[in-house]
Amino acid sequence: MSDRSLLIGLDFGGTKLAAGLVDPARGDLVASVRRPTEPEGGATLALATMLEMARELVANTPGEVGGVGINFGGPVDAAAGVVLQSHHVAGWDGFPLAARVGAALGLPTTLENDANGQALAEWRFGAGRGSRSMAYLNVGTGIGGGIVLEGRLWRGAHGMAGEFGHMVVRPGGPVCTCGRGGCLEALAAGPAMGRRARAALAAAPPEIRDRSAMLRRAGSVAAVTGRELTGAAADGDTLALEVLDAIFADLALGIANILSGVDPDLLVLGGGAADWAPTLFARLLEGVRTVCLPGTENQIALSPAALGADAGIFGGAAIVLQPRA
Amino acid sequence: MSDRSLLIGLDFGGTKLAAGLVDPARGDLVASVRRPTEPEGGATLALATMLEMARELVANTPGEVGGVGINFGGPVDAAAGVVLQSHHVAGWDGFPLAARVGAALGLPTTLENDANGQALAEWRFGAGRGSRSMAYLNVGTGIGGGIVLEGRLWRGAHGMAGEFGHMVVRPGGPVCTCGRGGCLEALAAGPAMGRRARAALAAAPPEIRDRSAMLRRAGSVAAVTGRELTGAAADGDTLALEVLDAIFADLALGIANILSGVDPDLLVLGGGAADWAPTLFARLLEGVRTVCLPGTENQIALSPAALGADAGIFGGAAIVLQPRA
Repeated sequence: MSDRSLLIGLDFGGTKLAAGLVDPARGDLVASVRRPTEPEGGATLALATMLEMARELVANTPGEVGGVGINFGGPVDAAAGVVLQSHHVAGWDGFPLAARVGAALGLPTTLENDANGQALAEWRFGAGRGSRSMAYLNVGTGIGGGIVLEGRLWRGAHGMAGEFGHMVVRPGGPVCTCGRGGCLEALAAGPAMGRRARAALAAAPPEIRDRSAMLRRAGSVAAVTGRELTGAAADGDTLALEVLDAIFADLALGIANILSGVDPDLLVLGGGAADWAPTLFARLLEGVRTVCLPGTENQIALSPAALGADAGIFGGAAIVLQPRA
Repeated sequence: MSDRSLLIGLDFGGTKLAAGLVDPARGDLVASVRRPTEPEGGATLALATMLEMARELVANTPGEVGGVGINFGGPVDAAAGVVLQSHHVAGWDGFPLAARVGAALGLPTTLENDANGQALAEWRFGAGRGSRSMAYLNVGTGIGGGIVLEGRLWRGAHGMAGEFGHMVVRPGGPVCTCGRGGCLEALAAGPAMGRRARAALAAAPPEIRDRSAMLRRAGSVAAVTGRELTGAAADGDTLALEVLDAIFADLALGIANILSGVDPDLLVLGGGAADWAPTLFARLLEGVRTVCLPGTENQIALSPAALGADAGIFGGAAIVLQPRA
C-alpha cells in the first residue's frame, strides 16, 4: 500500500451501516454512504449490504485503495479479526468478519471495536491530532472509551482497556446494565440523563415543572431524554441545569479518576457529549477542576470529539494505519 | 555498557538510604548496603552518604559497572533527572540529582520516582516477570502505583500515571492527605487501616475489645496500626477480619476500576501488602471478584510483590534498563 492510497472505513453500528473512503494523508473523507441497519436480516444481510456499499465506493473512485478497516459496534477479538458478539443484531457471535470482508474485496482488512476505533480516529484525524496521549470517552447509550498512547491503541490484556463506563464512582448507586451499582454509565450515559431529568420533573412543584424548557421541548415528562435535558440546560433552564450539574459531578469524578490513573495529554468526549453547547462543556470542565487531585487543576485538557457521525468511518481508516503489535 | 555489566541501584527513601549492585542478566542482588536517613542533614548529607555507599560497592566488586539508576521517594522530572520535591528531607526541591550522581561516579545515571521504579523492578525482576503488562499498587504510608506496558513505564503526560491512591472510590468519604474525600489512600493505606481498626476497637463492647488479638499485639487501642490489624486478621481474629473486610471492599473497588480501565495482565501489590498472609490475599481477591465487572471474574490476576525491601534498589537497575522515550 502506498502512502497515497485511500482507505475504506466500514462502520457497523447498532442503527446504521456506514462506509467511506478516507484520504489518510489529508485527513479527508472523500466519499461516504450510509444505510439503516435492518436487525431482522441479521449478520448476513448487514455484511452483504456493507459489501455492496464498499464496492460502490471503490467503483466510483479513480484513486487506489490500499486497505479496509472495520469499526464494529460490539466486542471483537482484534488480533483474530473476529466479532465476539453483537447486542443488536443476531448472527455475529464468533463471525470472522475481517477475513470475510478481506476475501470479498481483495484487500487487507483489520477489525476493531467502535470505542477503540473512534478513539484512534479522534487521535489521528480529529480533536486529538498532535497529542502524545489521549483518552477517549464516548457518552451515548452507554459509556465506552479508549486509550491511545504515543500513537498506539492500548487495548489491554483482555481487550478491555478504556472501559471507563464501568468504573464504579458511586458504590451503591443506580443499577448499571452490567448488574452492579454506581458505574459511570449508570450515572451519566444518555439513558441515565433522561431518567434523572424525568425524576427531577416528577418531583418538582407543578409551577416549576410546567415552566420547564425540558417539558416544552419533549411534550411530556415521559418523553424527556438526555437531549431535552442538555438542550434546556444550554438555554439556561434552572431545573435542567440543576439536574445536569448533579450528573456532571458524577462524570467529573470519573474523568478525574482517569486523569490521575492514566494521565493523558488530552481527554476527548465523543458521542452525544460532542454536541453539548460550549457553555455546558465549560461547566463540566469546572466540575472536573472542583474534584480533581489538588494541584492538577490547570493541566486538565478536555475537548469535544471533532468527527461527529463520521467517527466510525474515520475509525476504520485509523485502524488500518495503526502499527500492528 | 555491555550486557554483562552490573548496575548500581540507589534508593532514596523517607527513612533509609539503600544502594546495591544488581546483575541484570541473572536478576541477582550482588551486594547491598543500607543506612538510615538523617533528615536534619538535608539533601547534602543524604547525597554524600549515598555516594560513599556507592563508591564502597564499586570498590569491592571485581565486575564492570555500566550505569546508575536512582529511585527517589518523591516526585521527579525523570526526563530532566531533577527531583521536584521531597516531603521528608529539606533541600531536594529542584535538585539535579541524576547529573550530580553521574558526575561524582563517572557513570551514566537515570532518575525515577519510587512507585514507578518499584513497578519496573517488579516487572523486570520480581512478581511481574514474563507479563506483557502490569499495574503496580504500593500500599504503604500512602498508596502509589505505576503502569508498565510491554516493558515500558507509562509515566503519563504529567508524570502522574498510576496515581491510583488518589482515585476517588467513596465520594464524601474520609478526608485524604490531598484534601479531598474518599480517595483510595484515605480508605486503605496503612494509616487508614490503623484508624479504622482503632475506631472499631473503640466502638466494640468491652468483652469483644478486651479479647481482640489486635489489642493483645499492640498493648493499647491507641497503639494499634495496620500491622496489628493484618496480623490479627491472619490469626482469625473476628473483629480484625470484619475491619479488614470493609477495607478490602474499598481496595477491591479501586482494583476493579484499575482492571476495567487499564486492563493489565497482572496487578502486583507492594509495600505492606506484600507481607499479608496468603489467606488475606485470597480474601482480597475474593473481594475483587465480588465487585469487578461481571464476566471478568476469572481473568483477575493479583500477586504480592516479590522484591521486598530491595525493590528500590532493583528499581534503580530496572530504570537503567528501561528504553528511553
